[in-house]
Formats: sequence, C-alpha cells, structure tokens
Amino acid sequence: MEPCLHPTLVDETSLVPYLDLARETGYRYVDVPFSWLEAEAERHGEAYLEDLFRARGLVLANLGLPVNLYESEPSFLRELALLPDRARLCARLGARGVTTFLWPSVDEAPVRYISQLARRIRQVAVELMPLGMRVGLEYVGPHHLRGRTYPFVQSLADLKTFWEAVGAPNVGVLADSYHWYTAGESEDDLAELPAEKIVYVHINDTNDAPQDAHDGRRLMPGDGCIPLVSFLRGLYRAGYRGPVAAEVLHEAPLGGTGASRALRVRERLESLIQLAKGER
Amino acid sequence: MEPCLHPTLVDETSLVPYLDLARETGYRYVDVPFSWLEAEAERHGEAYLEDLFRARGLVLANLGLPVNLYESEPSFLRELALLPDRARLCARLGARGVTTFLWPSVDEAPVRYISQLARRIRQVAVELMPLGMRVGLEYVGPHHLRGRTYPFVQSLADLKTFWEAVGAPNVGVLADSYHWYTAGESEDDLAELPAEKIVYVHINDTNDAPQDAHDGRRLMPGDGCIPLVSFLRGLYRAGYRGPVAAEVLHEAPLGGTGASRALRVRERLESLIQLAKGER
Amino acid sequence: MEPCLHPTLVDETSLVPYLDLARETGYRYVDVPFSWLEAEAERHGEAYLEDLFRARGLVLANLGLPVNLYESEPSFLRELALLPDRARLCARLGARGVTTFLWPSVDEAPVRYISQLARRIRQVAVELMPLGMRVGLEYVGPHHLRGRTYPFVQSLADLKTFWEAVGAPNVGVLADSYHWYTAGESEDDLAELPAEKIVYVHINDTNDAPQDAHDGRRLMPGDGCIPLVSFLRGLYRAGYRGPVAAEVLHEAPLGGTGASRALRVRERLESLIQLAKGER
Amino acid sequence: MEPCLHPTLVDETSLVPYLDLARETGYRYVDVPFSWLEAEAERHGEAYLEDLFRARGLVLANLGLPVNLYESEPSFLRELALLPDRARLCARLGARGVTTFLWPSVDEAPVRYISQLARRIRQVAVELMPLGMRVGLEYVGPHHLRGRTYPFVQSLADLKTFWEAVGAPNVGVLADSYHWYTAGESEDDLAELPAEKIVYVHINDTNDAPQDAHDGRRLMPGDGCIPLVSFLRGLYRAGYRGPVAAEVLHEAPLGGTGASRALRVRERLESLIQLAKGER
Repeated sequence: MEPCLHPTLVDETSLVPYLDLARETGYRYVDVPFSWLEAEAERHGEAYLEDLFRARGLVLANLGLPVNLYESEPSFLRELALLPDRARLCARLGARGVTTFLWPSVDEAPVRYISQLARRIRQVAVELMPLGMRVGLEYVGPHHLRGRTYPFVQSLADLKTFWEAVGAPNVGVLADSYHWYTAGESEDDLAELPAEKIVYVHINDTNDAPQDAHDGRRLMPGDGCIPLVSFLRGLYRAGYRGPVAAEVLHEAPLGGTGASRALRVRERLESLIQLAKGER
Repeated sequence: MEPCLHPTLVDETSLVPYLDLARETGYRYVDVPFSWLEAEAERHGEAYLEDLFRARGLVLANLGLPVNLYESEPSFLRELALLPDRARLCARLGARGVTTFLWPSVDEAPVRYISQLARRIRQVAVELMPLGMRVGLEYVGPHHLRGRTYPFVQSLADLKTFWEAVGAPNVGVLADSYHWYTAGESEDDLAELPAEKIVYVHINDTNDAPQDAHDGRRLMPGDGCIPLVSFLRGLYRAGYRGPVAAEVLHEAPLGGTGASRALRVRERLESLIQLAKGER
Repeated sequence: MEPCLHPTLVDETSLVPYLDLARETGYRYVDVPFSWLEAEAERHGEAYLEDLFRARGLVLANLGLPVNLYESEPSFLRELALLPDRARLCARLGARGVTTFLWPSVDEAPVRYISQLARRIRQVAVELMPLGMRVGLEYVGPHHLRGRTYPFVQSLADLKTFWEAVGAPNVGVLADSYHWYTAGESEDDLAELPAEKIVYVHINDTNDAPQDAHDGRRLMPGDGCIPLVSFLRGLYRAGYRGPVAAEVLHEAPLGGTGASRALRVRERLESLIQLAKGER
Repeated sequence: MEPCLHPTLVDETSLVPYLDLARETGYRYVDVPFSWLEAEAERHGEAYLEDLFRARGLVLANLGLPVNLYESEPSFLRELALLPDRARLCARLGARGVTTFLWPSVDEAPVRYISQLARRIRQVAVELMPLGMRVGLEYVGPHHLRGRTYPFVQSLADLKTFWEAVGAPNVGVLADSYHWYTAGESEDDLAELPAEKIVYVHINDTNDAPQDAHDGRRLMPGDGCIPLVSFLRGLYRAGYRGPVAAEVLHEAPLGGTGASRALRVRERLESLIQLAKGER
C-alpha cells in the first residue's frame, strides 16, 4: 500500500501543475480526473501525456468510470463504445482499475433500477476484461443519503450481494474509510475479502458519530476519530497492496496551501500504512 | 397453440387417473405436478412413465421448477444439482420449458432479494442450456399482493427489466391472462415479444375489475370478462405456438365433474384459439 | 423415436408435393431443405407455411444450418445475422435442432481450420441459445474421405473432443448409422452420451465392409448389413426420443416409386425402433 | 518498456542471491521461476517474500504458468485448483500476466490436441479473470521444431487464429524476438496488435539465418543480427509498456560473470528501448 494524491486535497485544476505538485510532495501514485487526461491527450497527443507521467516517476492510480450509468440507453451505449480506448490510455499510464459509486437510496422502482444498473455494470466489466482491468464499486455509508424512497447499497454486505446481480468476475469494491465507518463495519469485514475484490481505496476522516457524519464534510486522514489503522489493516490482511488515495470531500476550505496538505497527508498515510502493517 | 389440461381443473391427485381423464377429454398437452411424475418414476421406472404418456398420445407441457429459490444456499445448491436429471426426464416426456413465479412485492431489502434471485435464476438457466430448455418467469398482477414493503415484479414491463439482472439468454415469460389483465396490459404488449421469450401460457378468467381480482378466486376461461381472444391473439402474433393451460386457482368448488370441466375448457380453448388466429 | 421422411428418398423437389407424400405415407416428422421452406414463405407468407404443416399434421424435424461456415468472414457474418429469424421460422414448424456436418480430413493448416470453425460454431450456438435450439454436428466416417492432408473429425470420439474447442453448452451430435458403422463404433459408444447431446439421427445402410463403404452409395435402412437395431438401441438407451430420418445418399436410382420407398422405409423404421426398444 | 532480469542470464539458483544481483545491476523487473518463490514462501511465509521484493524495490514481471496443460485430466484439474492462490501471491509481488508456450508441431491428432488445449487454456484464463490477470501464449518459431507429424502454432498469425479456439477475452501473446525473427515477421505485425494482447516480452538474439537458428543456442540481445529495435518499436507502437526480459537459452556457457552479463544486458536493453521509442 502506498499513498496516492487526490485532487480534492489541492487547488490545482489542470494536469501539469497537479503532476508537478505530486512529484514535489513525494507521491508515486496520483488520482486524476479523466477530463484532465483527455484534454492533455487531445492537445498534445498520448505520447506527450505518457511523458508527463514518466518524467515525474508517477503512476495513474485509477480511472473514474467515464460512462454515465443512469442516462438513456443510446447515451450509455455511446459512452460504452468509447470506454476501451479510454481505459487503454489509462492502462498505459498505470491504471488497473475503473471505479464508480452506488447510491444508498433511490426513488426509482427497485427492480428496474437494480436490474438495469447490474446489466450496465456487467457490460462495462466485459469491455474491460481483455485489458485485465477490474471494476471497483464504492458503497456509500452516510445516513443522510438514505432518505430516498427505497434503500439500495448502504454497506459492504449490500455490495457483496449486488455483485451477484452483476455476475461478472472482475467486479469488486472501492473501499472508503468514510463509508466503512458510517456503515458500522469492522476490520474483519474487510480482511475477509479475497484480495482481488479490493480494486481501490479512499481514505479520509471525521469527528462525527457514524450516524451523523456528512458525506460532503470530511476531514483529512488523521484529523478525526475513524480507526484508520484498523481500516488499513483490514485491507492489508485481505491482500490489498495498491494505492490509498485521500479523497477529502469538503465544503469549507481546508487550511494551509495545497502543497502543505499534500505533504502532510503523504506523511500521515505512510505512518498509518506502517502501523497497519505492524512495522511500527 | 393448443389446449393443455391443468390439475387445478380436476379432482385427480395422482398421475394415471389424471392422464386417463386427459385422454378421454381430448387433450394432447398436460400440465403435471413434478411430484406425481417423480412418484411414478420411483415406483415403476422411467420407461414405465414414458409409456404412460405415449400410450395415451400425451405430451408433458412444462416442468414447474423443482428448486426452491428462496431457501438457504446449501438447500438451493442441493436442489440445483438434482435439476438436470429431473429436467432430462421431463424433456423426454415432451417438456421444453421450466417455469416459476415471482412475487409482486416483498419485505426483504431490494438489493439482496433481487440480486440473489437473479443469480439463482441465472444458475438454473445455465443448467438448462445444454438441454435446449428455457426458463419462463410468471409475473403476478393481482393488486392485493402488492402490499408488502417493497414492490418487485408486477407487470410484463417489470419482468422485462428483471431479465437484464438475470442475464441468461434462455429466460422468458410465463404469460397468464389473469396477470396480464390485472396489470392493465394490452394485446400489443404481448405481440411485441420475440416468440422465444414466451415459454408457457396460463389462461383463466374473472368478472372483477383489474384492481379487485383476487389471485385465488379465478374463473374458468370464458366465464368472465377478460378479453381472452385479444390475450391469445397477442401471443399468437408474437409467434407463440405452444400449449395453453387453464390454471384456475379457486377457493369455492368449481361446478360439475372434473371430466365435464376438462371437456368444456378444451372446447372453449379451441374456440378462443381459432378466434385469436382469425380462423372464425 | 419416430420415422422421419427425408428428401433423398423421394423425387419431389418442392414443398407441397413433398408434404403431401409425407402425409400419404404416414409420416409425422419431415426433414425439408431450408430453401424449399424459404421459397414458400416468400411467396405466400409464414402463416401459409405453417398451415401447410398443420393441415397435414406434420412436424419439421430439423433445420440444416443455413450458414456457410467456410466462407469469408463478411459472408459468414451476413448469414449469421439472418440465422435467428430463419431458426425462429423453423422452430414454429417444430424444429428444435440445427445441424451441419464436419469433414473427416482437410488440406488447410489444422490450427487455423479448427480454431476458426470452433469459433464460428460457437457463434451459431450462441445465436440459438435464446430459442432453446441445439446444434448437432455430424461426424463423417467413410474412409475414402480421409485422404486430405490432415485428419479432422472421423469418429464420435473425435467429435467429443471438438466440442471442447467449441465450448458452447448446446452443441451435440447428429448421429448417422453410416458414419457410426464406418467409424467402427459400438452400441455403448452411443448409449453413454447424455440424452441432450444427441440432436438428430440419420439412418441408412450398406453391404460393404466399414473400410469400403462409399459415402454417396448408401442403401435404404434394412437393405444392408449395418446392425441398425443396435444403433437405434444405443440412441434409445442414451435417452434420444426424437425423429429418425432415412438419409439415403445415392448415385444410381433407387428402385420403385418415391411413395413406395417412403412407405417401405417408414414401416421398416417402425419395426427397427420397436426392436430397439425391446417391444418385439 | 523496461529491462527485466531473466534467470537464464545468471548462475544463481535461488531467490535471495538472485534478487540481490538484480538490485545491484540496476533492475526493477525480475522474472523468477515459480518454484523459487514457492520454496521461500513455504519456508518463511508470504510476508517475508513480499519484503524481499519491496526492500529491493523489485517487481515480479510474470508468472510462468504452474499448470501442466498436457497431463491427465485429474492432474490438470488439481493444478488448476491451485492456480488462483498461486496467481494471487504473484499478483501481490507485481505480476499481471501468466505465460506458457505452444509447440510448433505435434504428433497427436490435431482435433484432440488443439481442442483439449484450447479448452484447458480457456479454463486457466477464466480462473485468472477475477484477478485482472492475462494469459500470454508464446509461439515458437525455430524451424528445427517443426518436424513432428502435424504443424501447430508457428507464427503470430497462427496464434491469432488459435485465440479463436480459446475464446477467452484475457488471452494474448508472449512476444519473443527469437520467434518473431525465425517466423519471418515484421514490425507492423506486432504494431497492429491491440496493446492488451501483448502480455509479456522476451528478447534475445542470433547470428543465424531465420531458418537455421536453433532454439537452444541464443545470443544475448545485441550480439546477433535480429533487428531488435524494429522488434521493440513494433511492440511500443502497439502500446506495450511492460517488462522486456532477456531470456537467453544457451548450451555453451555465456562469457563473463553473471553480474557482468546482467549489467551489460540491462544497459543494452535501455539503449534498444530508447532507440525504439525514438528518443535517440
């Protein structure tokens, strides 16, 4: 496991300054919005994009699924058709997983919502099979998002059953400490997963109780009370060895400069990871 | 399309008298509880069972899925393991489809209920693929069954979307006039289906309005106000050419003898089918 | 098992007289070239075609695969795209299987020939899965066809291994007494097959030794020395219950009128089947 | 693309000294016999094995398929059952591909040999799908190996058609300069592959003509006349960005010490890769 820079931590809004900051603050993994990658590739070509990463010793950690799973069928199919080339580009930059999140409650009738979504995620997974890429689904825990008419995926246990509807072998979880905490889960819940089912990891914090924590008001990892060592230890025990990205969704500005936050988070993640592995 | 005798019409409770009655009242297709078939095969062997059908010129119309889809996983897997041999036996008697029904509402959390059910039906369908058998799912329309916590499959439209979760090619519908009527559907809703998606057909009647009709108090086809010619015409236009079984669930006794009911229903079904095909 | 009329037995070259002859000579099953069916459907419509069969109480036994598996890829894909509608039409006439034969030796390099053919047959099988139709592959035994550069499928044992390359669940065998005899196989070789692996059956005869029998000079079943009762008994023991078609490829004219041959063959097949089932 | 140390270059026969040498000679990627890994994991545990790699900054490049594809079915199934855990261990060390080679000619009957092998490789690929791992098949070019009764896979073109028999999405090629040269292929033959179809790369050399080069008498890359820049450029143009391992099968001892050879090869590979990418 290694720290990964996430755009929510910093103020940059385009690729090159973001990659520069990643290098300067000592990261190897970076999480990058696909639109930034695409913009650069269109302007300067894919070779140039690769050079940007390679020259800085950086690895792309993940591809945020560039397909809207809730749009009309023609729109979905159009984006699905673009997926292999987009994933191929990201694979070349180092990405091995494609991730998206699931809503904890919905207003649509369950059988339609669940069946169509399962089928579309299956199609996404099938497109990614030849590339050896996996699909990570992020369950969302905060309770204030459970208020729509019908519950959907609110926990790892819910997600594990949704995998049955999807029915593709290369589909797993994006584990996020915020959702794990608000869903009231344990270290063992993570540790019992087969390693390959963990596709990607988000980490962040809160001082609120699980039932009160707001999805959009997160703290930097270590600033709150989530047992992050236990979270990481569960993932490590399961066999996860990939990037850990500090996704800190926030409303009020985070203190300090972007560089200072990036640096602080990297150092904290390194400590947390060492503790999780029992090295300290 | 041809009439099919259904056990709900008659008083017999074992195979041989039931098959005798079917022959005497002019049927070629019969719908038989699997337990009757199994009992006879265990007592006298499969060859004897075949002879019972062949000697009377009868064809088994369908296999009611002999797998409980809602039991514990070990129990499900045990019954799934028995399915190929049971289906093979029924295929030898003429059956080409395996059918089961879906609840219109449920108390279980949707994502678990729907995902597990979709996965189990997929497994059933996969077991039947080598045999060239299809799985027909019966949606259930009566409104009094919609009262549990969450809606599930209440219409053909719902079922069509559930097929996406199942994701197996050999899964279609068991169309029942009662459910079609209570779900408020049209002839065209049926006619637009690919022929192979219609696995089996139930027919029966009611004099109640769609929102009032009770699932357990059905009338014999022609005794009520469901537009059965339109129902059958929709199926015929779609390309369905198989058995049409009068499944008449009832609480109060039906009038007359079993033989008289079987005979009357066969004659009515023949008339309805002729009208549906435009031959009269 | 029931006799099935085959066009090689008679002199008719179009559908209506052929179906008339089938009825007059007491058949229920007929094997019909797809081109005859298509010609009639194009002229008079599919409903008319159905009526031709229904009015005579006839059932279509089989669809000879209307896809050339050895043509260029665009040509193959064009015919594959037409297959579902064609199969759907034949399914409506009663057909449950689609069949084609495999060469016993070929001049093409094995890996290309076998791999492309396996992939194409897999695609055919996938198209037929939703219809609940199976694909029957006919292995070809006569030794004079083994002379090309590389051996391919010359026996049931060869075919069983080729199924592994195809890898689709709904693929089985078209068993032909001529090939079974010339391949030197036994009753048990057939009896050990799962019932669903036998998709269709050809029957015919020869007086030549297995190594000498010429594929194009066959005798009517019963006119030669092939142990046909044993052949049919093997299939019956495996669980096959479908049509048995007398495909009598011949160079010199067969004696008598078509009607007399059709009648004689039907009677003989009935006797052979009774003997195979142990009823006489 | 980056150089990868291969055991054929050096004299070490166990893991720790081999990894030490890799670090000392400047490699990041290492190719390791699975037996060395397994021995160490059994003695000291998987965590220790991971530490060996991590402490030296090394990444495992590949897993040589630890399944004999030509053994009896029970033996194959036993090894297949062990594959997921073994692949999981290697994935944790960095490996993303599993590779094996195919014979250019065989004595077994083609349909059996090809069909069984295709099916078994399909099963291997299916086991690896959840892990996001791909299967790389190495075609073998040297002409002296073409003498068995039947040709099998002798070129990239042959392999591409064999992929059709395998029929799994995550199956591609292990490209080896020796086989590419002896098969008479071009840069464009490689460049036209989708990136994900190139699973792993071997590089080595010869001074012999393509038809004379002996599989077991290879030279270190750069010591012969194979146009290696063109070879690497084809792979780079296709999108390959992974390890390039100098597999130098040899009979006579290679000159110098293992460390000197490893160092020399790493420097040469870096030059060749730079030339292939147009950076020099």
